Amino acid sequence: MRRIKITGCTNSLPKGKIKFGNQTRYRLADGQTLLDLAEDAITNALKDANMTISDIDCIIGGMATPLQAIPCNAALIHERVAKGTDIPAMDINTSCTSFITALDIAAYMTDSGRYCNILIVSGDTASAALNPDQKESYELFSDAVSAFIVSRCDDDTAGIIFSAQKTWSEGAHDTEIRGGCALMPSFVMTEENRQDYYFDMKGLRVLKLSANRLPAFLKESLEKAGLSLQDIDTVVPHQASKALKFMMPKLHIEEGKYIDRVSDYGNMISAAVPFVLCDAIHEGRIVRGDIVMLMGTAAGLTSNVMILKY
Amino acid sequence: MRRIKITGCTNSLPKGKIKFGNQTRYRLADGQTLLDLAEDAITNALKDANMTISDIDCIIGGMATPLQAIPCNAALIHERVAKGTDIPAMDINTSCTSFITALDIAAYMTDSGRYCNILIVSGDTASAALNPDQKESYELFSDAVSAFIVSRCDDDTAGIIFSAQKTWSEGAHDTEIRGGCALMPSFVMTEENRQDYYFDMKGLRVLKLSANRLPAFLKESLEKAGLSLQDIDTVVPHQASKALKFMMPKLHIEEGKYIDRVSDYGNMISAAVPFVLCDAIHEGRIVRGDIVMLMGTAAGLTSNVMILKY
Repeated sequence: MRRIKITGCTNSLPKGKIKFGNQTRYRLADGQTLLDLAEDAITNALKDANMTISDIDCIIGGMATPLQAIPCNAALIHERVAKGTDIPAMDINTSCTSFITALDIAAYMTDSGRYCNILIVSGDTASAALNPDQKESYELFSDAVSAFIVSRCDDDTAGIIFSAQKTWSEGAHDTEIRGGCALMPSFVMTEENRQDYYFDMKGLRVLKLSANRLPAFLKESLEKAGLSLQDIDTVVPHQASKALKFMMPKLHIEEGKYIDRVSDYGNMISAAVPFVLCDAIHEGRIVRGDIVMLMGTAAGLTSNVMILKY
Repeated sequence: MRRIKITGCTNSLPKGKIKFGNQTRYRLADGQTLLDLAEDAITNALKDANMTISDIDCIIGGMATPLQAIPCNAALIHERVAKGTDIPAMDINTSCTSFITALDIAAYMTDSGRYCNILIVSGDTASAALNPDQKESYELFSDAVSAFIVSRCDDDTAGIIFSAQKTWSEGAHDTEIRGGCALMPSFVMTEENRQDYYFDMKGLRVLKLSANRLPAFLKESLEKAGLSLQDIDTVVPHQASKALKFMMPKLHIEEGKYIDRVSDYGNMISAAVPFVLCDAIHEGRIVRGDIVMLMGTAAGLTSNVMILKY
């Protein structure tokens, strides 16, 4: 077990709250940026951990989308909460599962003693690129940030039991934003190719590829971890879409074992997994000693499975 | 020492070669993308390591700038060289020093036995955002890719001796591209704010902040590593600018010990450090057993110092 302990977390939602039928979604209000949400979430996560920024020795941006092409998101977050310090800042990105990957890598750094307390910030500005003409995605995503503080645990009571990632690039273009960055800069946007600058999701293709690959990946993960689904207290899946309730039974994960907050928040991209995990911790649904599985699929198509002892 | 061994590397330059006085720079030709360079560099790096893609068990994009906002660069690289496999793909980003950070993190994964052979790809499309009106940066940067294969070394002959990063976000806006991503999407570009979508560098500010902070950081790094500059065979610095030859003496690193290829290639952003390292290996300037220091400053302002045994 790689020693790492969640010592604090807080979520932050923007002011804009909208409804699509019985589904609630969140969007940044005018003048609000993701950095405002990040600052809010981090300030409160530090309080939750009973720490100040001077206790933090690494800042990881575990986010799917860039705030600017340069510098990395973590440097811009650093400016908001750690200016004047020399805390190292870095981004780790596997799209929607970036938080899981960031936690996975953070655990090497805490377990080895490189860092004592690491701040992981996840969240994306979905609203910056949602296409009003693509109802499926326009009504699904939310802006949100979740901030976690993870620490070295000298007593072996908490840590990563198992973690694995797979990427199947047959799905590389099933979830994407083609324009805005190096392959298709803003300078070449026209009325004709404007659609390329929006988020574009081929939901059914993602679902089919995931349904095809996830069962074997989960089975292999549990075997390698030497565990069965019965050993897992709570599954925190990526809140990809309303299809979650169809995907979980395919994986033999029963209702009550997994958390589904899609109707309350939608798909919060990289914030989805930590947001729901943080809520579950604060609600007392997940308690110390619990075995928790974080899992999900991300643009790429990438999939992560992580089993941790909280 | 965290065990990791460089088992292969290759650089790739684009077809477009231009001169500014005695300075040579490289730019993608029409129709060429960074993914073309990446595919070329990876294909040859695999040959250099006497491997095929099936030997690789992790792909890291250690790049400063996004090719698309979604998915991560590594997933798009995966599509070019590993489609049909399930090799995990992730991005690790600390701007210009992304290769050093990727290697740093890769070493936890090889040392622990998580992965055997990791492919690290670094490089950026500088030309996508260079501002013809900002001569200082327009005449400095080059497009390039460098691909490395790093492997587990069971015999303790190669590895990371020391590694550290610091971020000073007083410099967060001294090197940046403000527009194109979530904080300022392509949709809001106008003739008035068009300048915000270009790369913007305040070279003198970066230089001053670096000159102010680097000497103490280097001194501290050597002390922690238990080494002196005399123990270092070769220093591979980030090829930030022509100021390299003024910065190195300030750090008491003498001519002949460090490699300066700025006039040949310019600043290749995240490719700069691995490109020069790879050249030095193939030229026989760096040989097995050598103690090599990789170092540099990056947008953020971030700085990395790494000491490794090749």
